[in-house]
Amino acid sequence: MRLSEFFTKTRREAPRDETAKNAILLSRAGFIYKEMAGVYALLPLGLRVIRKIEGIIREEMECAGASEVLLTTLQSPALWERTGRWSDETVDNWFKTSLKDGSPLGLAHTHEEPLTALLAHYVSSYRDLPRLVFQFQTKFRNELRAKSGILRGREFVMKDCYSFARNEAEHAELYQRMKQAYTRIFERVGIGEHTYCTRASGGSFSRASEEFQTLTDAGEDIIYIDPATRTAINAEVIDEAVLAELKLSRERFIEKKAIEVGNIFPLGTKFSEPLELNFTDEHGEKRLVVMGSYGIGLGRLMGTVAEVLSDEHGLLWPRSIAPFDVHLVKIRNPKFEIRNTPQIINHVAAEADRLYDTLSEQGVSVLYDDREAVSAGEQFADADLIGLPFRLVVSEKTMAVGRYEVRERASGEVDFIEAEALVNRLMVP
Amino acid sequence: MRLSEFFTKTRREAPRDETAKNAILLSRAGFIYKEMAGVYALLPLGLRVIRKIEGIIREEMECAGASEVLLTTLQSPALWERTGRWSDETVDNWFKTSLKDGSPLGLAHTHEEPLTALLAHYVSSYRDLPRLVFQFQTKFRNELRAKSGILRGREFVMKDCYSFARNEAEHAELYQRMKQAYTRIFERVGIGEHTYCTRASGGSFSRASEEFQTLTDAGEDIIYIDPATRTAINAEVIDEAVLAELKLSRERFIEKKAIEVGNIFPLGTKFSEPLELNFTDEHGEKRLVVMGSYGIGLGRLMGTVAEVLSDEHGLLWPRSIAPFDVHLVKIRNPKFEIRNTPQIINHVAAEADRLYDTLSEQGVSVLYDDREAVSAGEQFADADLIGLPFRLVVSEKTMAVGRYEVRERASGEVDFIEAEALVNRLMVP
Repeated sequence: MRLSEFFTKTRREAPRDETAKNAILLSRAGFIYKEMAGVYALLPLGLRVIRKIEGIIREEMECAGASEVLLTTLQSPALWERTGRWSDETVDNWFKTSLKDGSPLGLAHTHEEPLTALLAHYVSSYRDLPRLVFQFQTKFRNELRAKSGILRGREFVMKDCYSFARNEAEHAELYQRMKQAYTRIFERVGIGEHTYCTRASGGSFSRASEEFQTLTDAGEDIIYIDPATRTAINAEVIDEAVLAELKLSRERFIEKKAIEVGNIFPLGTKFSEPLELNFTDEHGEKRLVVMGSYGIGLGRLMGTVAEVLSDEHGLLWPRSIAPFDVHLVKIRNPKFEIRNTPQIINHVAAEADRLYDTLSEQGVSVLYDDREAVSAGEQFADADLIGLPFRLVVSEKTMAVGRYEVRERASGEVDFIEAEALVNRLMVP
Repeated sequence: MRLSEFFTKTRREAPRDETAKNAILLSRAGFIYKEMAGVYALLPLGLRVIRKIEGIIREEMECAGASEVLLTTLQSPALWERTGRWSDETVDNWFKTSLKDGSPLGLAHTHEEPLTALLAHYVSSYRDLPRLVFQFQTKFRNELRAKSGILRGREFVMKDCYSFARNEAEHAELYQRMKQAYTRIFERVGIGEHTYCTRASGGSFSRASEEFQTLTDAGEDIIYIDPATRTAINAEVIDEAVLAELKLSRERFIEKKAIEVGNIFPLGTKFSEPLELNFTDEHGEKRLVVMGSYGIGLGRLMGTVAEVLSDEHGLLWPRSIAPFDVHLVKIRNPKFEIRNTPQIINHVAAEADRLYDTLSEQGVSVLYDDREAVSAGEQFADADLIGLPFRLVVSEKTMAVGRYEVRERASGEVDFIEAEALVNRLMVP
């Protein structure tokens, strides 16, 4: 994509009303646009990151055997009254609205109720189970405060998955499959080493749940980690009983701030009972389905990567979720300023154009800074801010030596590479 | 995908509360699930159709030079008050809600206001124009009645695109580009010959607009068509002046019912003026951006295909948007019922499994009816109802003659094809 055709621009200054690093960097670099607190539009660069994250999650969900659906935002009270979650006193983050005839509606903040009811429509026999169902759906949560950029939104896309099993043993198998899928997702997205699977509270649903927590000072949660065993426990559940169960002493654990990037949750029969999701087993007996739920917020994940992997110059995307692979910069080399005749400029432009086409044909996605009247300094600052894995420079200087300048954003290492070796260097390893 | 792993099932009976053919067929076949009137969840088969439609539209939008974004559902009144579209008296289909502090919010029913404001954030010079920006976003419309299945929803995904030009001539060029993209989209989706570009009212925005109307008795609109010249005019704008302009006589036109599957709309400076989207031209003068908007409802398009291309047996998907290419049916051939020993059944199952793997590897997507304990009659009825382009049968009978039975859903033609020719027959032409 040519930068000259982008409608967005980078900004030198942080937006006045943002304090969170993720929102400052992503706004300045042109990935997101704030509609109101906790409500962000995705610009072309941001949408490309979200689509890549979505692609990785979808692969892992399908690989685990889950089927994709898309449930609705608008919800009528009936189902939620049966589980006791319609009232604003039990659930304090509903957005509510109403139909023309005055009947109340809610905007879904989660989808246990409608999906359980949907499954009840189709599941009747033990032959219809087990099942895993997932979706990418926008959730609406009426948060009192929303100051963490895209880490805690009032409107955000979430991957939520739900498991439906015949008994606890089968549930445990599905739960482990999801846990492994989650571990792979965070590894593939590039924050595997910063992310711990923590023991967390089960809330009103179960004895315990697990969270995937990524270490960062921007996190709202406190967790205790033992780096040696990679064991982690949320602050609210660390106690003697849990430590005894894990056979680890309190001293091993270090306190860290972290952000919850995913959670996996045994639901038992909390929803199948009131919503009558049951099946007839092999012996003709009616039994309740045992459920679990598994969530990842896509925007929060992008924001977490922005917090964890950025530096003072800007963002720093892992290859797997970078909006483009390469930032191709065509520059008028300042050292040769005096010699920048139209011929030389055209020469450099033609070479950069050619390179853009060649790389694109080879499947390397390129953001091409083909802008005129912008200084090399500005171009480099933009490349650092946007944070693609590689910066590739074409200038009179690089053309004079017959090599291309390739700089790795993460390490800062610069190589001068011959034409023949270039595509190999930039292709996915 | 194996049907035995699907959580959905087909239904013999129509849902009691549906009267629209599209909703009856799509519900019975397991593509959609009604949450409430005008609000439908997408089940795995329906989601696959929507994703294919989305893919075609995205290709055409990107080919026309448009950049993809994702704006937000939640809207604060400020922007909409500037264009006079916040009040429920001017816009009668708002869903409204509020933040915890009581500030009112709306759920976007369209996105001219926020996108114009977003562009005003980035556009300042003539060098920043022209631009085309599009998205796939859920719209919420508080319709008084919603009885047409997925043809008129209260919540539905729409592709909306907006053009931003420096002057009327440049706008006209973008508008024509979009018109051509729309023509290609409806052709590729398989309803090109049923779809007319009609002269329509410009509402309060402009003198005229154009709509893409697909002929079907399920349509809510009346249009007048001249099949010879493929000219069409909406009922509300056909008058002597328009006919004189087209140099066509009233007699040539036949009255038809149709459904609007897309519209393209010159907006002039209706939004750029109140929202101050202007630019400095080559002479240093400040001017208003000239806009256009271009919409397609994805669910409505799927519903229209269901209305137009179905028959008494069920749905009938064009290859381009079919959820799968082939419906592979493994049957216990009733003629050989008496000989259905476990050995023979295993033999047929192994052959069908092998075929499923081979076709999938060759890039032919297969819905594999691997169910046990279902009669061949039920399997064939399900295949007709779901409506994939090809039905491929593996039975003892087909194995005995060493050929496969391939039936084209649209024509009903049956061929017996040798193994070597099978993949070629089923690959995209």
